[in-house]
Amino acid sequence: MSSYSVNNLNKVIRGSKRATYNIEEIDAIADAGFLCHVGYEFEGQTIVLPMAYGKIGQTFYLHGSLKNRMLTNLISSGKACLSITHLDGLVLARSGFHHSANYRAATIFGTTRMVQDRDEKMKALESVVNQMVPDHWDTLREMNEKEFKSTLVVAVDVTTASAKIRAEGVIDEKEDQNLPVWAGVIPIKQIAEAPITAPDVPKEVEIPESVKDYASKNSFLKL
Amino acid sequence: MSSYSVNNLNKVIRGSKRATYNIEEIDAIADAGFLCHVGYEFEGQTIVLPMAYGKIGQTFYLHGSLKNRMLTNLISSGKACLSITHLDGLVLARSGFHHSANYRAATIFGTTRMVQDRDEKMKALESVVNQMVPDHWDTLREMNEKEFKSTLVVAVDVTTASAKIRAEGVIDEKEDQNLPVWAGVIPIKQIAEAPITAPDVPKEVEIPESVKDYASKNSFLKL
Repeated sequence: MSSYSVNNLNKVIRGSKRATYNIEEIDAIADAGFLCHVGYEFEGQTIVLPMAYGKIGQTFYLHGSLKNRMLTNLISSGKACLSITHLDGLVLARSGFHHSANYRAATIFGTTRMVQDRDEKMKALESVVNQMVPDHWDTLREMNEKEFKSTLVVAVDVTTASAKIRAEGVIDEKEDQNLPVWAGVIPIKQIAEAPITAPDVPKEVEIPESVKDYASKNSFLKL
Repeated sequence: MSSYSVNNLNKVIRGSKRATYNIEEIDAIADAGFLCHVGYEFEGQTIVLPMAYGKIGQTFYLHGSLKNRMLTNLISSGKACLSITHLDGLVLARSGFHHSANYRAATIFGTTRMVQDRDEKMKALESVVNQMVPDHWDTLREMNEKEFKSTLVVAVDVTTASAKIRAEGVIDEKEDQNLPVWAGVIPIKQIAEAPITAPDVPKEVEIPESVKDYASKNSFLKL
C-alpha cells in the first residue's frame, strides 16, 4: 500500500500513533462522505465553510456559483486544505482529561485550478452528485448549457494528506480503574431515514435503485 | 431577538435568504454539537482540523496540549473562525444543478486569548466535557494539578457570526416537474447507540443519569 509523503504540513504531531498517511485508508475516509470543511484566507482572516465534494482518483472537485468568494479565493491562492471528519463515538473516561472521541478524520492538501475542459467539468459535476448518492447522476435530467456555464468547478489535485483514526475504548489512568466512576463509549452513527418523494413527482415514477441502495446501506429504517 | 452585526466577514452572499445573524438561532446550532472545524495559517497555507469545543455565553473554548500547533497559532494570530455543521438531509432534485442538502451551518468569528485565570480555565474544561454530554463533568474524578497544567485552553470571544439553514424539500425548475425523474429528500440523522460500559468498571458502578439522558435524547436504540 502506498503512502503520502510526510512533511511539515501533514505530519501528525499529537497522537501520532493514530496517524496514517496511507492512500487507501485516506481514500476510504473520503469515500465515506461527501461533505468537507474548506478553509481560505480573506483579508488576513481564515474562513472555514462546509462544502460538498466530488472525487476522481486523487483529485477532489468543489463547485459553486461563478462568483463564489471561497472558490475564487482558492483558485487565486493556488492551494486548498479540505478536512473530512466522521464521528464514530464519544469516549467517556473517568477523568475529563482522558475524554476523547472515536473518529476518522482526513486532512487533504492540494493545488487548485479552475476546471475549464468541458469533459473534465462535466465528469466533476457527475462526481459531486455520485459522491452524495452513488450512481445517482445517470437517473437525472441532463444538465443544460445554462446550468453548466453558470457553475464554477475547482479541482484540488492532492499533493499530500494525512488522517487520524481513533477506534477504541476508554484509556484511563491505571489508578483510576477502581474508582466508583462510570466509563464507557457511546457509539455515534449517521443514518439515513426512508426517502420522502417530492409531492409533485408523477405517481408512475418509481424511486430509483441508487436511492433505494443508499437508504438500505445507510439506514436502520428500511424502505 | 438580538443579532450579530453584518460585515464583509460574516455576510452570507450566496443563498442569502437562508442566512441568519440571529444570536439565539446561532447559539442553537452550536448547542446541538460539540465538534467544530477550525482553520489556521501555517507557513502561508490554511490548515483545517476538527476540534471539540466548550461554550460559555458568547465565548467558545478549545483545548489541547501545551504545544498544539493549531492552538498556539490561534493565540498568536489573535483570531479564529469556527465552522459548526449539522447535516439534516440529502435533497435530490430532478437535475444535478438543483441538488442540495438540508443543514444547519454556523460560522463563528472571534478574537483569541490563552486562558490563564484558574477559575475560567477550569470552567472552560468543564464546558468542553458538558458540551459533549450535558451535566457529565460532575460525575467524573476531579482534574488533578498535573492534568490541569499540561492543558492549553484557548478562548474565542465571539465578535460576529452567521449561519445558513436549509430545511425544505426539492426546488426544481417548473418545466422539469412532469419529467419521469424521481425527486425527494433523504433525511439524515446523527444518532447515539446504547452506551458500552468499559470492561474494567467495577460492577456496582451504575451508568450516570447524564449518560442515560444523552442516549435517550439522541438515540433510536433505547437503553
